[in-house]
Amino acid sequence: MTYCVGLRLNAGLVMLSDTRTNAGLDNISRFGKMFTWERPGERALCLMTAGNLSITQGVVTALNEACARAEAGEDVESLLTCSTMFRAAQLVGDAMAAQQKRYREQLEETGARAGATLILGGQRKGGRPRLFLIYEAGNFIEATEDTAFFQIGEHKYGKPILDRVITPETPMPQALKAAFVSMDSTLRSNLSVGMPLDLAVLPAGELRFSVRRRMEQDDPEFQKVSGAWSDSLKAAFSSVPEIVL
Amino acid sequence: MTYCVGLRLNAGLVMLSDTRTNAGLDNISRFGKMFTWERPGERALCLMTAGNLSITQGVVTALNEACARAEAGEDVESLLTCSTMFRAAQLVGDAMAAQQKRYREQLEETGARAGATLILGGQRKGGRPRLFLIYEAGNFIEATEDTAFFQIGEHKYGKPILDRVITPETPMPQALKAAFVSMDSTLRSNLSVGMPLDLAVLPAGELRFSVRRRMEQDDPEFQKVSGAWSDSLKAAFSSVPEIVL
Repeated sequence: MTYCVGLRLNAGLVMLSDTRTNAGLDNISRFGKMFTWERPGERALCLMTAGNLSITQGVVTALNEACARAEAGEDVESLLTCSTMFRAAQLVGDAMAAQQKRYREQLEETGARAGATLILGGQRKGGRPRLFLIYEAGNFIEATEDTAFFQIGEHKYGKPILDRVITPETPMPQALKAAFVSMDSTLRSNLSVGMPLDLAVLPAGELRFSVRRRMEQDDPEFQKVSGAWSDSLKAAFSSVPEIVL
Repeated sequence: MTYCVGLRLNAGLVMLSDTRTNAGLDNISRFGKMFTWERPGERALCLMTAGNLSITQGVVTALNEACARAEAGEDVESLLTCSTMFRAAQLVGDAMAAQQKRYREQLEETGARAGATLILGGQRKGGRPRLFLIYEAGNFIEATEDTAFFQIGEHKYGKPILDRVITPETPMPQALKAAFVSMDSTLRSNLSVGMPLDLAVLPAGELRFSVRRRMEQDDPEFQKVSGAWSDSLKAAFSSVPEIVL
């Protein structure tokens, strides 16, 4: 399983993913699910992946190849050269659709699932920070004023705190805290979501990541939030009046 | 969808269910999912149901028919006459297996699902309070010292608070509070789980329900817990230190 969450705030973008993958409960591995592309001062993009790993790796490889070919002078549109974030989401969606077309039928014949979803966030010079949720058909939706975050993978355990806290106006420190609490709740309740975590922060208008960091099990910032949240939850529960029936 | 939770405490049994059913998102109805049988002072049993409504109604009808036939003097084993709670769980499981045998194939041919799960709790004179989770094959498991609760239906949103609070030693008032908070979290996050609620409380050794109550939207006890929990959660989140990266 997987848990990735992307927040689209007025203050910028926050992207947080776990790194655990499993093929059955007895075959657990660690794979990064966060990929970034950056031309500091011009654009920065972050992609997070959930679902069939061979499919999502194929998508990322195709996107990287296009960047390399564009870099080498070929006339190829890539995440680093396309004109808008909307166009970037189309390129990612097209790469997904190509993978699905190539493998879906064979996968399903073997009883495997080809399903995959992606979250793409980023900003380019002249544009605003944008966040997209890309489906396996290659179609996508964009975060709006009404819905300021997207989740992929095991979304249920981590959703309530985001529902209560995250709006476009949420300041960055509070949003980071909410993302960590959301991840902590998911880690506790679903064994197939696991540390370490990958975190990327893209403040609005800066066009470069201010944070791009892997957080290991003993990361002091994450530990601080996780411990304090557990204690606060217990205190919160105690403070609710008892039922008299 | 559905959410039902059953707690097996040293202090007795708590059973709480919602009442919303849906056949698609545009066809939402209200059906009770909690059924009780009681011979005060001798035994009391409570069954909660999730899954295909025609299947679970068929199970309850079969169980009630057996009770009526036993009552009329026929030599039929029923929930009100069987010798142990374990035997009661077998009778419920047999009723489930019979429904599945009768309808499953036709249901699946039409693309519908026959899946259903049940929670059975109760105590008879000379026995202890017992709680069972009954699957669609008619097999079942029993709550133990290690696992003091069962959930059926939409279990994810309401599980974290139970994991943190419920053990066999949890006193009844705190357990009721945890059950309400668990239900409140689920109601907030999944529209297909809805008020009113059905609540049954069976204190250990009393062999009669001390509470068997329908709680409507404006129920003061539930409102009190729901409001206080929301406020306490916000306070808990505020008290977690902010992230500095």
